[in-house]
Amino acid sequence: MAGEQRCCRVTCTAPVNIAVVKYWGKRDSKLILPINSSLSVTLNQDQLKTTTTAAISRDFKEDRLWLNGEEADITHPRLQNCLREMRRLARKRRSESEGDMAPLNLTYKLHIASVNNFPTAAGLASSAAGYACLVYTLARLYGADGDLSEVARQGSGSACRSLSGGFVQWLMGERPDGKDSVAQQVMPETHWPQLRALILVVSAEKKPMGSTAGMQTSVDTSPLLKHRAEAVVPERMAQMVRFIQQRDFEGFGQLTMQDSNQFHATCLDTFPPIFYLTDVSRCIIALAHRFNAHHGATKVAYTFDAGPNAVIFTLEDTVDEFVEVVKRSFPPESNGDQFLQGLPVGPAVLSEELQSAVVLEPVPGAIRYILHTQPGPGPQLLHDPGLHLLGPDGLPRRSAAGEPR
Amino acid sequence: MAGEQRCCRVTCTAPVNIAVVKYWGKRDSKLILPINSSLSVTLNQDQLKTTTTAAISRDFKEDRLWLNGEEADITHPRLQNCLREMRRLARKRRSESEGDMAPLNLTYKLHIASVNNFPTAAGLASSAAGYACLVYTLARLYGADGDLSEVARQGSGSACRSLSGGFVQWLMGERPDGKDSVAQQVMPETHWPQLRALILVVSAEKKPMGSTAGMQTSVDTSPLLKHRAEAVVPERMAQMVRFIQQRDFEGFGQLTMQDSNQFHATCLDTFPPIFYLTDVSRCIIALAHRFNAHHGATKVAYTFDAGPNAVIFTLEDTVDEFVEVVKRSFPPESNGDQFLQGLPVGPAVLSEELQSAVVLEPVPGAIRYILHTQPGPGPQLLHDPGLHLLGPDGLPRRSAAGEPR
Repeated sequence: MAGEQRCCRVTCTAPVNIAVVKYWGKRDSKLILPINSSLSVTLNQDQLKTTTTAAISRDFKEDRLWLNGEEADITHPRLQNCLREMRRLARKRRSESEGDMAPLNLTYKLHIASVNNFPTAAGLASSAAGYACLVYTLARLYGADGDLSEVARQGSGSACRSLSGGFVQWLMGERPDGKDSVAQQVMPETHWPQLRALILVVSAEKKPMGSTAGMQTSVDTSPLLKHRAEAVVPERMAQMVRFIQQRDFEGFGQLTMQDSNQFHATCLDTFPPIFYLTDVSRCIIALAHRFNAHHGATKVAYTFDAGPNAVIFTLEDTVDEFVEVVKRSFPPESNGDQFLQGLPVGPAVLSEELQSAVVLEPVPGAIRYILHTQPGPGPQLLHDPGLHLLGPDGLPRRSAAGEPR
Repeated sequence: MAGEQRCCRVTCTAPVNIAVVKYWGKRDSKLILPINSSLSVTLNQDQLKTTTTAAISRDFKEDRLWLNGEEADITHPRLQNCLREMRRLARKRRSESEGDMAPLNLTYKLHIASVNNFPTAAGLASSAAGYACLVYTLARLYGADGDLSEVARQGSGSACRSLSGGFVQWLMGERPDGKDSVAQQVMPETHWPQLRALILVVSAEKKPMGSTAGMQTSVDTSPLLKHRAEAVVPERMAQMVRFIQQRDFEGFGQLTMQDSNQFHATCLDTFPPIFYLTDVSRCIIALAHRFNAHHGATKVAYTFDAGPNAVIFTLEDTVDEFVEVVKRSFPPESNGDQFLQGLPVGPAVLSEELQSAVVLEPVPGAIRYILHTQPGPGPQLLHDPGLHLLGPDGLPRRSAAGEPR
């Protein structure tokens, strides 16, 4: 098997996830153990995914990494943590089932290539998908099965939630060694087939503060964050699981918005304060509340991570109308044809009543594009060798999958 | 005395106050009892004041009110509360010292005129100065001395803090009847002669949500506000009193900024969320932090109330330099000559180092003007009859004091 080839390659994909109960703050920054549990929705890889190829060969002189086609620094501490932990896991697996494994030498050097099919600039927490994909791919390469969330977590906390499809909770755990800080699927992606996500990519001017630095400052300075983690989130986790199990969009949507707002509140309570929401984010929030008020029910729910982009959760039957409302409220400037991406969106006629109650002062060009997607499965192994990002020589192929940078 | 004149008139002025430990949320919305204590700085009336004339006469047919020259609705419930409570206080005083009071009939009708010497649109909590002035003026008219904060509080909560000069705390109290929810001077206005305030009036587009409605929604929906009131503010009150007593600007400034941020954090944790800070407010916040970082010390401290305008506390020796920084960061568009108002500001030369570290991307026109002021005394009785806003006939004079609207 592997030992007979010049280079053994494995290629996998992994999804992006969007938290509806937010993770913000570590109690152990080395092991990446959070101060509270969190819960997310895994998005479909048809629209958003990371693809990673890992190759191993006795001919490789050193570990190497390519991100979106360009060679990158593989000595990054968190990356090294993942490589070391995956090799350890593989060694453990090997020793437990001695003899019947292929002689894939764990001391051989690795070549790794990874691409996103979405611009990094979209601010879609690409590190979660990236580390989930890395860890999953190495696990398939080394034949190291079992719970990978403990390893992925050490690359990027929220990466552990990208290891499963559908609705996933990351239990904070209690042990100092983090063995019980793992991700679990709450419900599979097939559980709520009507659920949709619209990603509103905002025309941002500046890159906001990174989440690693931000959350550390919050832990150090925000009295409200401590209270949130200890007293608010435990109850919200239980509520959110129940809303999802019951497919209760009213409850799910309200709590999703409240938890997004509370996360940003703790950022503002940080000193110096951290702002991820801009005036455009605030316009989107106000629009969503007006839309829901018009309908007398929670039809759309926003959530914002460490950047100005909104993710709107809604149900299938509301997509067309809400997208039309967004288009009227943030008229596309030049890219009319590329404004809508992802799953198809049908036409919608807005009633005059809705139009006058919901579409107030339009802000042209404030939203770059809308990506329409839905919940999806966890990481996938690709069987088509034509999809490897690295050639038989272990170097990036000319036409690697994914968008150009 | 009073009874011999056709109309007895009294005119007083009262100051604006700016909270450095914020009041947000009532535990009793009828009596206006707060969920936490608060602390403010009374600003000097040379720059910002309300002037009120109250007149009483047996010839008046009904109670009447003029605000900034226009007749206004005197049946407003909070205004009626203040009138009723002041009449009650006067009656009580009268019965306690029977005989030696002037026969000013408490059943006579009142005429009241009030003007601000600053535009209401400046968003400077004019209701606090307004109710403080009303209550103080009626007290002088009726000869009802004693603690007026309990009455002023029932007009507008923070009005009770405008009844004293300098540094004033409003103790939340514990009694259901609110008798112990009163304002007290912590230190007089002469205590910290170097302290200055710069009000940065932002070019706002919309009137933000009123504070009465806003704080009620916060009390009803924000888990973080409850925690702030119970667990955070008590300690902050004690700290703030200490910083003021010791004239410790480093401590005073840091805590002022933190408490402003936490107030706005609880607004964001409100559902639907309330936003008072805009992108311009965020620019001012970032500017202040860069300025302090450049100096390696807290030289300026921002605070924001229920609107986008900033109040910057600083010391006398920093005013010229910081004002120059603000002018470079928010270049005035048309009103160059009216951009600076209030106390004089001297010229300042910015070092290239400061300029490059602090003045980043300028936003022309984002700040309408800067008002330079300082702590000042409490309400004042005016002795010059030429300053009455109402004529001997009890009707507004042609040229009343204060700016035109």
